[in-house]
Amino acid sequence: MKVSKIGEFGLINVLSGMLAENRQPRKRAWRELLVDIGDDAMVWKPSLPHQIATVDSLVENIHFTLKTVTWRELGWKSLAVNLSDIAAMGGIPLYALISLGLPGNTAVADIKTLYGGMLEIGGTYNVAISGGDTVSSPFVFISVTVIGCASNPEGKVMRRSAALPGDLVAVTGALGASAGGLRMLLHNLEFPPKATAALRRAHLTPAPHIREGQTLVALGVKAGMDISDGLVGDLTHICELSRVGARLNVERVPVSKTVKSCFQEEALTLALSGGEDYELLFTAPPDIIDKVKTALKCPVTVVGEMTAQNQGRVILVNNQGKPVRLEKTGWDHFPAAETK
Amino acid sequence: MKVSKIGEFGLINVLSGMLAENRQPRKRAWRELLVDIGDDAMVWKPSLPHQIATVDSLVENIHFTLKTVTWRELGWKSLAVNLSDIAAMGGIPLYALISLGLPGNTAVADIKTLYGGMLEIGGTYNVAISGGDTVSSPFVFISVTVIGCASNPEGKVMRRSAALPGDLVAVTGALGASAGGLRMLLHNLEFPPKATAALRRAHLTPAPHIREGQTLVALGVKAGMDISDGLVGDLTHICELSRVGARLNVERVPVSKTVKSCFQEEALTLALSGGEDYELLFTAPPDIIDKVKTALKCPVTVVGEMTAQNQGRVILVNNQGKPVRLEKTGWDHFPAAETK
Repeated sequence: MKVSKIGEFGLINVLSGMLAENRQPRKRAWRELLVDIGDDAMVWKPSLPHQIATVDSLVENIHFTLKTVTWRELGWKSLAVNLSDIAAMGGIPLYALISLGLPGNTAVADIKTLYGGMLEIGGTYNVAISGGDTVSSPFVFISVTVIGCASNPEGKVMRRSAALPGDLVAVTGALGASAGGLRMLLHNLEFPPKATAALRRAHLTPAPHIREGQTLVALGVKAGMDISDGLVGDLTHICELSRVGARLNVERVPVSKTVKSCFQEEALTLALSGGEDYELLFTAPPDIIDKVKTALKCPVTVVGEMTAQNQGRVILVNNQGKPVRLEKTGWDHFPAAETK
Repeated sequence: MKVSKIGEFGLINVLSGMLAENRQPRKRAWRELLVDIGDDAMVWKPSLPHQIATVDSLVENIHFTLKTVTWRELGWKSLAVNLSDIAAMGGIPLYALISLGLPGNTAVADIKTLYGGMLEIGGTYNVAISGGDTVSSPFVFISVTVIGCASNPEGKVMRRSAALPGDLVAVTGALGASAGGLRMLLHNLEFPPKATAALRRAHLTPAPHIREGQTLVALGVKAGMDISDGLVGDLTHICELSRVGARLNVERVPVSKTVKSCFQEEALTLALSGGEDYELLFTAPPDIIDKVKTALKCPVTVVGEMTAQNQGRVILVNNQGKPVRLEKTGWDHFPAAETK
């Protein structure tokens, strides 16, 4: 059965039924939700004072290809990248609004699987899919808005603009596996089954670090973001917006073991500039970093420090403090013709 | 200059500059906005307790073609359809998040004009463009999320599900001009200059009825929506969600004078099922309708009544109360193969 056969309103009925079955009435999002699917807009009554919202779109043949991603993975990832933006602020994600562009010949079963993936990650992180629209489109696109709130009554969040000279730079987890997964999928690379599964998971069903983001804010971390464009590119954003510089010790960067074993000498480049790891990148004074290391269960690695010099720039150095060079520094949706 | 030349971050810089110039610090949206463009997410601290959000996407060659719409009109309309959803609830729109899909060869000047159109309508209705993303895409699409709040501390809003038997059915303004404008543009129809301008305006730069929606809620109207799919189709939505029926007197429907003069005997069909008029459709007991007529400056026309019979259906009748038939009942994004 194609979506063109059941029509927009038939599709809305199918999806509304799935959403209704997945309500979790005792969780915050559903407790505070007053009007959801079926009306012109959603209505909610938040109990914490500071609200957060973000939007991101995934486009077929630009951000994904249906040749390599399953509909379930696509559903998971389209929500994950937005939940990660809320995690990057240290907030609580609560609601997702889904705007879905679909060719008329898309199978209804595929869209149900897509929503299944969204409901799976929504259920994992207590996020309610609370509205959206479905439109005809020559290609698939998924535009997701996630709304939530600051995790504390004071409205403390992490900002890209709050890094200070003398702050240490730290990252959660290990980097490079998402970019490695993308390369594996695009070039049909063959690796041992365990590595294949890990790379695929890293690229297609990443886990947003929501609790970790909240813990960082609670411990006093003021500057941070999630790693979506690549460590070097994203640290450059922090440098630009905070009007400071950074020294990044490439030898300290935590490279995914799977990536090391599968990509050898390219592993570091994937970790530095591959992007889409959705780990958290943050800066704070050394005493706060120590507290973070104790509080978080995931690895936390100090990879450099913020500097008053080199405003807006990241200087890559090795263990001896000597500058090193890299070819690529991140991922740009419309790559500029010249190197920046 | 193409967007592929300045890159995603170059484009974000250009647009951020435009947004900064258009801040209105004394208006509610900007007063309550704490973090906007440049961070992972926006943050705001609402002063009214009930929050409202809605999303809608416009896709090139489905909802518009760049052969007939200017970039400024496209910017206006993409925001207008979402502001109208907030108006349909009787709410106050405050923030717009814009997710923009663009081919790399789009001219930067065109995107600035698009944002100019968004800023124009945003300025008119005191709505801040407060975030978004820009992605590469084979076609232009614009996904807009509008966030606002209920216009009263009690959280009263209009619902599609709140119509009761005995309620009168009323609409603001006159209908059919947007559908007439679309037909004129698609078929290069020639009309007198004044009519041409009015039809184009109705289709491409509609005015969301925000104040009118707030007044309706304040006067006690509980059931309503905006007319986006067409009067008959949208009234059917109210019937379905309210589990009631409706009798609609087609001879009382306020048809746009311009549409009557340009489309003669087709005018009524355009008014009943053309869609995208963004007038308000609402139901209420007769005494409330009388108050609404006194309070609103725009025309308010009673076109029928809600009934306990014919649950989920709209019965079209003439002045004599005799049933009449129409071929089309609305606009469906994925038209189902059979007639519903």
